[in-house]
Amino acid sequence: MRPLNPQDITRSVLASLADTPDERLREIMGSLVRHLHAFAQDVKLSEAEWFAGIDFLTRCGHITDEKRQEFILLSDTLGLSMLTVALNQDKPAGCTEATVFGPFHVEDAPHVERGGDVAQGAKGTPCWVRGRVLGLKGEPVAGAKLDVWQSDEEGLYDVQRPGLGRAQARGVVQTDDQGRFDFRSIVAVPYAIPHDGPVGQMLQATGRHPWRPAHLHFMVQAPGYETLITHVFRADSDYLESDAVFGVRPSLVCDWLEQDDGSFLLEFDFVLNATPPA
Amino acid sequence: MRPLNPQDITRSVLASLADTPDERLREIMGSLVRHLHAFAQDVKLSEAEWFAGIDFLTRCGHITDEKRQEFILLSDTLGLSMLTVALNQDKPAGCTEATVFGPFHVEDAPHVERGGDVAQGAKGTPCWVRGRVLGLKGEPVAGAKLDVWQSDEEGLYDVQRPGLGRAQARGVVQTDDQGRFDFRSIVAVPYAIPHDGPVGQMLQATGRHPWRPAHLHFMVQAPGYETLITHVFRADSDYLESDAVFGVRPSLVCDWLEQDDGSFLLEFDFVLNATPPA
Repeated sequence: MRPLNPQDITRSVLASLADTPDERLREIMGSLVRHLHAFAQDVKLSEAEWFAGIDFLTRCGHITDEKRQEFILLSDTLGLSMLTVALNQDKPAGCTEATVFGPFHVEDAPHVERGGDVAQGAKGTPCWVRGRVLGLKGEPVAGAKLDVWQSDEEGLYDVQRPGLGRAQARGVVQTDDQGRFDFRSIVAVPYAIPHDGPVGQMLQATGRHPWRPAHLHFMVQAPGYETLITHVFRADSDYLESDAVFGVRPSLVCDWLEQDDGSFLLEFDFVLNATPPA
Repeated sequence: MRPLNPQDITRSVLASLADTPDERLREIMGSLVRHLHAFAQDVKLSEAEWFAGIDFLTRCGHITDEKRQEFILLSDTLGLSMLTVALNQDKPAGCTEATVFGPFHVEDAPHVERGGDVAQGAKGTPCWVRGRVLGLKGEPVAGAKLDVWQSDEEGLYDVQRPGLGRAQARGVVQTDDQGRFDFRSIVAVPYAIPHDGPVGQMLQATGRHPWRPAHLHFMVQAPGYETLITHVFRADSDYLESDAVFGVRPSLVCDWLEQDDGSFLLEFDFVLNATPPA
C-alpha cells in the first residue's frame, strides 16, 4: 500500500489537464496548478489555514458588487496587478511608463474643451494641467484622446459618493495640432483604498497601511499608437515609498508647482509607442 | 530612468510584508506572493487573461451561498484539497488513509442503533455495512463514533433535495465493546459534482468530466485517537481512475459484494492513529 504522496497528487492533476483543447489555457492551468501546489507544500498548509483561505475568498466574493471589486483590490495589494502591467510592457526606452488601471475609471466621461474645467465642482485647490502627447521621435500626436480621473480633496472619487449622480474630477480632453492639451482640475491628495473588507483585514494583519500617494490618472489613446494607462504622481506626496498597490515608478513622479495665486500647475508630456505596421 | 522590472515589484511586495507580526502569517504570505508572481511571470500573463481570472473568482464568489461552496469545489478540482489532506497525514503505515471531506457533511446527523437503517427512505439497492474500528496494535476501539453520509441512487445527497427537510442516507453509529459497527444503507453510485457554475466551465474548458466514483463517506472519532475523515470506494465503480476531485487512494477501494437476495454487503475495518500523550 502506497501512502498519500503530494507529488503523485500534483502529477494526477497535471495529467487531468493534458487534453485541454486550447494550448494557451493548458499552459496557464498547468503553471497555476504547479505553483498552487508548490505553495501549499512549501508552507505545509494546515487544514485550518486552508479553510481560512476558502473563507477569505468567499468574503471577497460576497463584498464584490457593481461598485466594489475586492478581487481587483486583492490583486493590487499583492502586487499582481502591477506585475501584470510590467509583464506586458515591451516598449522602447523613452516611452512613458504604464502603471495600474485601478477600479475607478468610468467609460464615456464628459468631454472637456481645451482650457476647460474637469473638476465640475469637486472640492480642492485649483490645479492647471498641461503638456503634450508625443511619439518616440518627438513628433506631436494631434487629436489624441486623454481620459483623466482623480479623487477630490477628501480622497474620494465621484463614483464613491452615492447620490452624486454625475461626473466630477473626471473627463476626456483632446490634443490640438501641436499635440498640446490643457485643462483645469484640482490638486490630488493621498487617499486610502477601500479597507473595510477582507483586503483591509489582510493589510492590517500584515502591518501595512491602505494609502496611495497623490496622483492623477491618465489613459491616452491615439490612432497608430499603443494605448497608455498611467498616473502622474506628486513629488511632495506622502506614501511615494509605500504605495499600497505598488504603482509608483520614478519616471512618473513630477513637481506640481504652486503659483502666486495659490493654484498649482502640473506640466507633463506623454510619449507613446507606435503600433507595429499591420 | 529604470524601466518596469518584474523582480523589483516582487521584492517590493515581499518587503511590505516584512513587518507582519505573526510569524506564520508572514511565512504564508511571503510564499503566496512568490508563487503567485512566479506563476504570472512563467506564463507572461496578459492583461486580458488577468481580467478573466478576476471575473472567474468574482463569479465563484457570487454563486457561493450557505448551500453551495464554489471555492471548495475549485480547490477540490485543482487537487488542492487532497494535497492539503496529504500534507497533514503523518500517520504510521497501517493506519487507514484519509481523503477529502467534501461539502456535504452535516453536523448532528441522527443517531442510528446497531443494525439500524441509515437510508431512512433514500432510494437505492439495500446495502449492509459492517466492520471494526481498531488501533494500530489491533486493539478494538469501543464507543467510537462514525459519521456516515452518501448520495442516493440518483447521485444526490439529502441536502441537495430542496424541501426534503430531514436526513436521508446519513447518520451517526457507534462501535460496541469489540469495536464493531453494523448498519443498513443503500448502494452508493457515481455522481457528478455541481457543474453548472464557473468550476463546471473550467472542467469543460479543460476537457474534464465532473464525475466521482461511488463511495461512502466516514468520519471516525474516538477519545485517544486522531479523527479520521475518509471514504470507502466501490471496486467496480466507474471513474476510479479519473475522480474529479482526486480523492481515490488504492487502500480505500473495496469489493461491495452482492448477496443472494440482491442486497449488497460492504465490510471494512478502520485503523486509527493514537493521539500523542499530552
